[in-house]
Amino acid sequence: MAYRKIQAGQVRSFCEAVFQSYGFSETDSETITDVLLTADLYGIESHGVQRLIRYAEALEEGSVRVDASLETVYETPCSAVWDGAYTMGQVAARKGMETAIEKARKTGFGAVTVRGSNHYGIAGYYTKMAAEQDMLGICMTNTEAIAIPTGGRKAMLGTSPIAVCMPADPVPFWFDVATTVVTRGKLEVFNKQEEPLPLGWAADEQGLDCSDADRVIQNITRKAGGGIFPLGGFSELTGSHKGYGLGILVELFTSIISGGTTSPHVQRSGNADTSFTFLALDYGMFGDKGEIKERMSRLLQELRESPRAEGCERIYTHGEKEWEREQYHLLHGIPVNDKTLEEMRKIGAGREVCLEEYITLE
Amino acid sequence: MAYRKIQAGQVRSFCEAVFQSYGFSETDSETITDVLLTADLYGIESHGVQRLIRYAEALEEGSVRVDASLETVYETPCSAVWDGAYTMGQVAARKGMETAIEKARKTGFGAVTVRGSNHYGIAGYYTKMAAEQDMLGICMTNTEAIAIPTGGRKAMLGTSPIAVCMPADPVPFWFDVATTVVTRGKLEVFNKQEEPLPLGWAADEQGLDCSDADRVIQNITRKAGGGIFPLGGFSELTGSHKGYGLGILVELFTSIISGGTTSPHVQRSGNADTSFTFLALDYGMFGDKGEIKERMSRLLQELRESPRAEGCERIYTHGEKEWEREQYHLLHGIPVNDKTLEEMRKIGAGREVCLEEYITLE
Repeated sequence: MAYRKIQAGQVRSFCEAVFQSYGFSETDSETITDVLLTADLYGIESHGVQRLIRYAEALEEGSVRVDASLETVYETPCSAVWDGAYTMGQVAARKGMETAIEKARKTGFGAVTVRGSNHYGIAGYYTKMAAEQDMLGICMTNTEAIAIPTGGRKAMLGTSPIAVCMPADPVPFWFDVATTVVTRGKLEVFNKQEEPLPLGWAADEQGLDCSDADRVIQNITRKAGGGIFPLGGFSELTGSHKGYGLGILVELFTSIISGGTTSPHVQRSGNADTSFTFLALDYGMFGDKGEIKERMSRLLQELRESPRAEGCERIYTHGEKEWEREQYHLLHGIPVNDKTLEEMRKIGAGREVCLEEYITLE
Repeated sequence: MAYRKIQAGQVRSFCEAVFQSYGFSETDSETITDVLLTADLYGIESHGVQRLIRYAEALEEGSVRVDASLETVYETPCSAVWDGAYTMGQVAARKGMETAIEKARKTGFGAVTVRGSNHYGIAGYYTKMAAEQDMLGICMTNTEAIAIPTGGRKAMLGTSPIAVCMPADPVPFWFDVATTVVTRGKLEVFNKQEEPLPLGWAADEQGLDCSDADRVIQNITRKAGGGIFPLGGFSELTGSHKGYGLGILVELFTSIISGGTTSPHVQRSGNADTSFTFLALDYGMFGDKGEIKERMSRLLQELRESPRAEGCERIYTHGEKEWEREQYHLLHGIPVNDKTLEEMRKIGAGREVCLEEYITLE
């Protein structure tokens, strides 16, 4: 598929205009767009502007509501539970982390959990917000069930991402991973390329290791059994039960504490009804922040400088790749594929937002 | 190797007498013993009384100090940093979780981190303490470096266990795992049985996947390179970078925040100089505790009752196996192998604690 490099600022202006056309405020439009653009700048295309079509469809069918307002269900000085009222995930999420940070400023620790919301983009976006305020940020979300428990054959848990960001120099520790071996997007890439799936990625309808990407994806779509394995793969021998437990942990920290819908009951289409949670920790509760940050920076540096395996060119710490890609994409533009561009044009045309007025195509 | 089943109460009395003979108070002796016995009752032999010999040696050489007292380095209403002063890990750890729970009772959240201590047994012991007080407990420790970063060939991180316990009926969610694929103990079992290591477990001195258990263990002991892979195995393809990141996360939550020694600098012999951290969270900060616990119980039940993979007899949730083994071992005695029994006898003899006065051998 052909890609074009487009200046991030142009894509940003276009997306903001589209979201405003749906009735989002200027601020909320900027938030939603910034989450999408950050993914593209970091090289995480799956969570970037290519998702615009899904959001547009959800807004048009009304499963994501523009004018809904968050309702506080429960609150303490260090915590809050909100009902997301099917708002746009990014809007609820940004407010969630902002509130967690405010609470952490007062008490040291802030936890905000939101139920009944929708997909919020990359989890790591919100943890970065905390790190920018010199706090340790943690974020988790549940999703539609796609992962099978160790020994099972029915998808019961989500991809259960965990994101953590801790300030460090020159690059923060920015960790944002699904606690499954892979996500659905990876299966789709292998399927398109007609390559067999590596062992330990996915299960067939009997719960057994399966290399047939098409079969696995069809089963997932039809909810006919099978799914993706938890981090650790097929068997306890390689630690499958560990990833499975991390998945339960994410469910605990999202739907269970918020009273939201648990992953086995989250829908794929229409209103996603997901739950997510933001933790902010003022790490000054453990002493001098400068010293703690310095120790973190040193550990990461030691890891990067440690001896490399044969054939390995570089040891990374988490967030380095994304930081470098961001610098590159800010200079050279973000790659947008033709299909996405066409979708953007169509969405814009339907909203009286003309793509060519925002984006220069050579 | 031959095993005998011995009543847990007998082993308990013997161990308490041994620890008292070293000068520990009655309470501290009970604590240390209870941590060891809990491991044996749960079927985690590697962390049970078979460790007595290592503790005895450390106490005799003075690398673990009996009379040291914990020093508070920093404190806030929801946090504390202690210097472990090379105390027995279990003693510092129990006090750590007790203090975290007390703080959580007042503020909702309590975090106690201890540096400069020693091996503390199973991490899950302390999270269970929190759950018994109807709180969510989390515990982490760093260890001697044994895990290689993704792309590396030198052990830089510990096995980095994470333990979490959340109340649920009929069995709590009790999650206690190393964030490496396996621990050293597993390599040793394969080595004794002269079996090749499964792929994705361990690296040779070049950082490449290696099935030769003896070579890997020798390298680890001599610090000649190689080690155990992070959860996710050898390659990013199977999620190696995820386990690697979890290892950094544990380091952050232990040595980095406490100002302790980071895993690459932790010693194997003598004073271990490890750091560990206890988090207690009063989950009532998110609403009615009865309802939250009920939702957790239901999720776990749904997982256990979900359709099984072909060939799988049962789907477990974390803590079930340990709970069942505990019931069995309380009735039938805990299995102690002859080598351990002989070590116990010797240690006792040197301390005027006669094994036969405590333990009935048939």
